[in-house]
Amino acid sequence: MADDTSEALRIHKKLKGKISVELKDKQFSFEKLKLYYTPGVGRVSSYVAEHPDEARDYTWTNNSVAVVSDGSAVLGLGNIGPTGALPVMEGKAMLFKHFADIDSVPIVVDVHTADEIVATVKAIAPTFGGINLEDIAAPLCFEVEDRLKAELSIPVMHDDQHGTATVALAGLINACKVTGRDLAKTNIVIVGAGAAGVAIAKLLKEYAQPHIVAVDSQGIISSNRNDLNEAKQLLLQFTNPDDLGGSMADALLGADVFIGVSQPDLLTPAMIKTMAKDPIIFAMANPDPEILPDKAKEAGAAVVATGRSDFPNQINNALVFPGIFRGALDNQVKQITDHHKMRAAEVVAAFVKKPTAEEIVPKITAKGLVEAIAKEIT
Amino acid sequence: MADDTSEALRIHKKLKGKISVELKDKQFSFEKLKLYYTPGVGRVSSYVAEHPDEARDYTWTNNSVAVVSDGSAVLGLGNIGPTGALPVMEGKAMLFKHFADIDSVPIVVDVHTADEIVATVKAIAPTFGGINLEDIAAPLCFEVEDRLKAELSIPVMHDDQHGTATVALAGLINACKVTGRDLAKTNIVIVGAGAAGVAIAKLLKEYAQPHIVAVDSQGIISSNRNDLNEAKQLLLQFTNPDDLGGSMADALLGADVFIGVSQPDLLTPAMIKTMAKDPIIFAMANPDPEILPDKAKEAGAAVVATGRSDFPNQINNALVFPGIFRGALDNQVKQITDHHKMRAAEVVAAFVKKPTAEEIVPKITAKGLVEAIAKEIT
Repeated sequence: MADDTSEALRIHKKLKGKISVELKDKQFSFEKLKLYYTPGVGRVSSYVAEHPDEARDYTWTNNSVAVVSDGSAVLGLGNIGPTGALPVMEGKAMLFKHFADIDSVPIVVDVHTADEIVATVKAIAPTFGGINLEDIAAPLCFEVEDRLKAELSIPVMHDDQHGTATVALAGLINACKVTGRDLAKTNIVIVGAGAAGVAIAKLLKEYAQPHIVAVDSQGIISSNRNDLNEAKQLLLQFTNPDDLGGSMADALLGADVFIGVSQPDLLTPAMIKTMAKDPIIFAMANPDPEILPDKAKEAGAAVVATGRSDFPNQINNALVFPGIFRGALDNQVKQITDHHKMRAAEVVAAFVKKPTAEEIVPKITAKGLVEAIAKEIT
Repeated sequence: MADDTSEALRIHKKLKGKISVELKDKQFSFEKLKLYYTPGVGRVSSYVAEHPDEARDYTWTNNSVAVVSDGSAVLGLGNIGPTGALPVMEGKAMLFKHFADIDSVPIVVDVHTADEIVATVKAIAPTFGGINLEDIAAPLCFEVEDRLKAELSIPVMHDDQHGTATVALAGLINACKVTGRDLAKTNIVIVGAGAAGVAIAKLLKEYAQPHIVAVDSQGIISSNRNDLNEAKQLLLQFTNPDDLGGSMADALLGADVFIGVSQPDLLTPAMIKTMAKDPIIFAMANPDPEILPDKAKEAGAAVVATGRSDFPNQINNALVFPGIFRGALDNQVKQITDHHKMRAAEVVAAFVKKPTAEEIVPKITAKGLVEAIAKEIT
């Protein structure tokens, strides 16, 4: 890794940023300014002011997405603030462009309460066709996203929640096929109850109503706990039906599926051995998974997925967010719903013709994936 | 004009917006994501978080400028709101790119008090290397700009004020040469006491201390007026030393210079005939000037300038804002000062080797102009 990180620093410093703004009209000449700028643009502005529903036909809002972060939960780095977050958000803007031809700009914000973040994003919203929230810490992210979804008429999605949940569902659909399971009857343990864990639990529940137990750093989330934030209290309404207490190890006894969005090296081979036969292990902590794939397989795991590109089965948001936003923009969708996410997950799963233990999700570069997902976002 | 406005609508609808976001690395491939995005970007983000002063070397902030407007004073259209303003702000972003290779994005904001606009711009400021405020109505624009300049450590400039004032000063330097005047001894009437009028008055005063009388829609700004906002009260401190009352026509009696940033057709030939011999007329109302150049000349004007490209002597902000921001970004200037504006005006004026009545300012396309201005912004 040392080489890659030095090289990452070097290449960033060489390019001094990863994105640029360019003119759409490649034959631009100064004479055209009377059309693009004064006086011609005055007519366009009057028209758009009178017909705001048509603004997308005359401005970049038909294709622009802001990647908004306060820098409070950046990668595995934690709360490093907006300036530190900017390289990641520029990178995300690159992904939007590369995969979905979406004009995306980073917007890092130096405000850190829900009220302030919501006010800021609402204020700048007329500039964009969609808002991708990114790397905002839980539980702040839940309130921010809920309020923005309610108050804005453009699509808003916190990718750390819903991108991750959608890809996890896609992978799980195929992992169940590979291991001969019915997803609705699986016993799933989700470890990590932050942005991703909560969203995964909600989406799996909505999709197939499997048996879910959620675990955070203090153990199983149960009614005996008095330290639960609002999001975790909501989890209790549809997880842990037997209201078990105990540790992660307790939760895993006999479980079919481990989904980790927590910390490196949390899962031991011994724990895997206590799970059901042929267990499914999604060790998605980034960059270092809860257990390395080789160790998990030695302990009996039938299917192992991680967030990393250097192992098989990379559960990566980039499989879905480009297609979801591409579809939302093209189809003028104002809300990204659970239905959209479930359809996107099914599309991703179906992109693997014959799922195997080594291939439960397609490559991020799979041809046609963005378009296939986009079609479902209607 | 009818043809141009239809064509402007058509071309906007065809392109669906005027700017796009592109990857700087033209040899981008999926494999490089480990450097530009996870895991490599993690090292960049940690480094930038620890060394915020070096963020500009690793992110686009070394070259990014937000064009921020609340849409409250758009061109001659008035308060059409943020959505209507967006085509203009995209156009401004085009100009930044075309003239100064600056990566500029429009940010239209749906908030309209000074507190809210300041809070929004401050919140998103870590994303950018500079803030160009645009088309914000007076007197709101004065407070917004003053507060942002005081509270941010990146350059902030309201172009309607300072771009206009800088080019007007440049034009006036050469118009005085053409008419054999000493700028310090001229008698100047500024008509219009909004964003541009106030800024022009301040900059002329700072540069040469000429005799200035300011006029608004209610007449000469004098101590007898009880309807003056704070900005106009400040004007009184250094204009109208004899504290004259009366109308615009009264102010123009014997004046050397008319500078209009007001409304179409406000200036009549009869009024010009009451001015000093060989008067200088800057009729800068857009798109229709206070008087058309031919009529002004017939009435005796020695030099006429407008804001329009289809007449000689176009007093256009685009002569200066690209160079000012280019220099501010390259030289890491945190405040754009009156000194910068005066130097920029002198550079623009000096770009015309032999000023004549038909050429007091260079063409916006003059080679080397941006670079020459940028050198002075240190």
